[in-house]
Amino acid sequence: MMTTFTRPLIERRLFGPGPCNPYPEATAGLALPLLGHLDPLFITMMDETCDGLREVWGTTNRRTFPVSATGSAGMEAAFVNTTGPGDVVVVAVNGLFGQRMCDVAARNGAEVIAVEFEWGTPIDPQRVAEAHPNPKIIAAVHAETSTGIRNDIAALGELKGDALLLADCVTSIAGIELRTDDWGIDIGYAGTQKCLGVAPGLAPFTINDRAFELRIENPRSWYLDLGLLGGYLGSNGTQSGRTYHHTAPTAMVASLHAALGRILQEGLPHVWERHERAGRVLQEGLQKRGLELFATEGHRLPDLTTVKVPDGVDSAAVRGELLERFNIEIGAGAGAYASSVWRIGLMGPNATEENALLVLAALDEVLPGA
Amino acid sequence: MMTTFTRPLIERRLFGPGPCNPYPEATAGLALPLLGHLDPLFITMMDETCDGLREVWGTTNRRTFPVSATGSAGMEAAFVNTTGPGDVVVVAVNGLFGQRMCDVAARNGAEVIAVEFEWGTPIDPQRVAEAHPNPKIIAAVHAETSTGIRNDIAALGELKGDALLLADCVTSIAGIELRTDDWGIDIGYAGTQKCLGVAPGLAPFTINDRAFELRIENPRSWYLDLGLLGGYLGSNGTQSGRTYHHTAPTAMVASLHAALGRILQEGLPHVWERHERAGRVLQEGLQKRGLELFATEGHRLPDLTTVKVPDGVDSAAVRGELLERFNIEIGAGAGAYASSVWRIGLMGPNATEENALLVLAALDEVLPGA
Repeated sequence: MMTTFTRPLIERRLFGPGPCNPYPEATAGLALPLLGHLDPLFITMMDETCDGLREVWGTTNRRTFPVSATGSAGMEAAFVNTTGPGDVVVVAVNGLFGQRMCDVAARNGAEVIAVEFEWGTPIDPQRVAEAHPNPKIIAAVHAETSTGIRNDIAALGELKGDALLLADCVTSIAGIELRTDDWGIDIGYAGTQKCLGVAPGLAPFTINDRAFELRIENPRSWYLDLGLLGGYLGSNGTQSGRTYHHTAPTAMVASLHAALGRILQEGLPHVWERHERAGRVLQEGLQKRGLELFATEGHRLPDLTTVKVPDGVDSAAVRGELLERFNIEIGAGAGAYASSVWRIGLMGPNATEENALLVLAALDEVLPGA
Repeated sequence: MMTTFTRPLIERRLFGPGPCNPYPEATAGLALPLLGHLDPLFITMMDETCDGLREVWGTTNRRTFPVSATGSAGMEAAFVNTTGPGDVVVVAVNGLFGQRMCDVAARNGAEVIAVEFEWGTPIDPQRVAEAHPNPKIIAAVHAETSTGIRNDIAALGELKGDALLLADCVTSIAGIELRTDDWGIDIGYAGTQKCLGVAPGLAPFTINDRAFELRIENPRSWYLDLGLLGGYLGSNGTQSGRTYHHTAPTAMVASLHAALGRILQEGLPHVWERHERAGRVLQEGLQKRGLELFATEGHRLPDLTTVKVPDGVDSAAVRGELLERFNIEIGAGAGAYASSVWRIGLMGPNATEENALLVLAALDEVLPGA
């Protein structure tokens, strides 16, 4: 076999839509001596991790924990446990991840009503709430990673009536204001590789008692069955004591644990403010250079900025040059905007003014005619 | 909040049924500068990882890759893509993981025929093959982590007829002889936290062309849909080019990549021999002390040894004392044998004669009357 299994020791600055560079504490957490998943030390660490997740979710939900897979599995866990044949699910769609919600919900046999909005614009909560008189679930993406738009989840919470509100918080958690309980979110999922500043591989998840009571018993997924995971969570979950379900990814949990400690030590409002400031500096700098932002003003995410590729500029060539010359990764656009939009993320430890200035300076070097 | 997010820097020797201590290369791989999941450097690393996995699986299957979740999700991926209503699945059950296969297959709507054998004894391939004249799938566990038994998968492969052979290789891969193609395994899944010597979090997976052709289109799981994952794998998978599916857990892949390099440098036959020798020393030593092994002679796994708890001995107290005094973790028994059997794993870097001697010496210290 000719495979060498060596790897050039190149350090990238991950300014795309995620993963970002991890917090140093998160990287150190990965390399700590590994613990078994039943070790009392691990169980304490998992308890603390769930405590920390409750803080960043803004919830007191006892069922708050990391699903043992990436953010997309969080989406699957949310739907597989709550939707089945006969259930009506209204999904607000203004980007790729809203679309994906429709696909995932439909595979569970739900009747899906997609309420569509133009990509780059926010959802209209009123239109979403009026799409069906009595849905089981209303679902929306808080921070659309595909477009850089922040949707108004709090307004949906006010309008939801008896429906359960299901929110994708992958690109909002630990980066922008998120108040699960205050806003009426009943089921939420996220990922670790955005503003939490941890490598991809876990899906922070929260579900309140009302949604848990309305769940599907024996859902189609064994791996993501919240009834079984209750045992796995033990006292933090159903209080029924821990029982073996699957082997927790202990290194990834140690990393998330360390990152949460770092974030809560800085203080969540300060972390939000840091993301806000970095995004503002970046977005003002881009506009000062005559570049046009893609997301509608007033609804722009600070942690993920979308910018239109200028006419006549080769989108991929610019990204390639940033990577080659400066080890800076930025993202292509999503879906139909693959070559007409760039996505620039300043998330987790990357969310600083200095990094905003660095991206701008690097773009000045590589943009044609600059 | 009172949570401290600190953790005592205790190093455990993980001699339970998994996770084991990772190879040092695997730990170093976790802490390498993180790569984005679309970075050309990551794609090369993923290609090499799939190459390495083909070696340890003993297969040329192009669809060989790590599922982005733990081993149990590998089991779910295997069944969700291949079984649905109307499909007959024959499962050989001689332990916990055979039982779990029945649960997972049934959730997918399959007609499950469980062929039961006493725990601690091997399956009888003939009885399994004769359980149904024309099943779609025959499934069995190669190395039963719950009992320490090695089942004869090669014999099942000879008897399978037109059925697809689906094998759980979680506790066999990279520890004992495994020859996917030679033995007629059509679908296999594993975990990283046993003999591969990597933290838990990925499920090495392989499926051959015949099984892929017979798969369920649009399976109930979006996250584990092999059709979509084909795009994610790109040239190593369906050759159709890479398309975004989910964000790969890049740190865990880097760790698996490094461990595979380590294992293949040592040489797979040498790695198997090292596991064999460590297990032999341990099992002979246990018997020399008058302890009785649980698994039937001639069918014992070297990497996972099951031993009966002597009459009158408090199983949990012994495990607790090993952990407290010597930082040595061994496992309880599974299911009905929770307090009457211990499980001692010598896997990955832990599979050495020295570690076998260490466990024996530590047991001498803590066993009552020793």
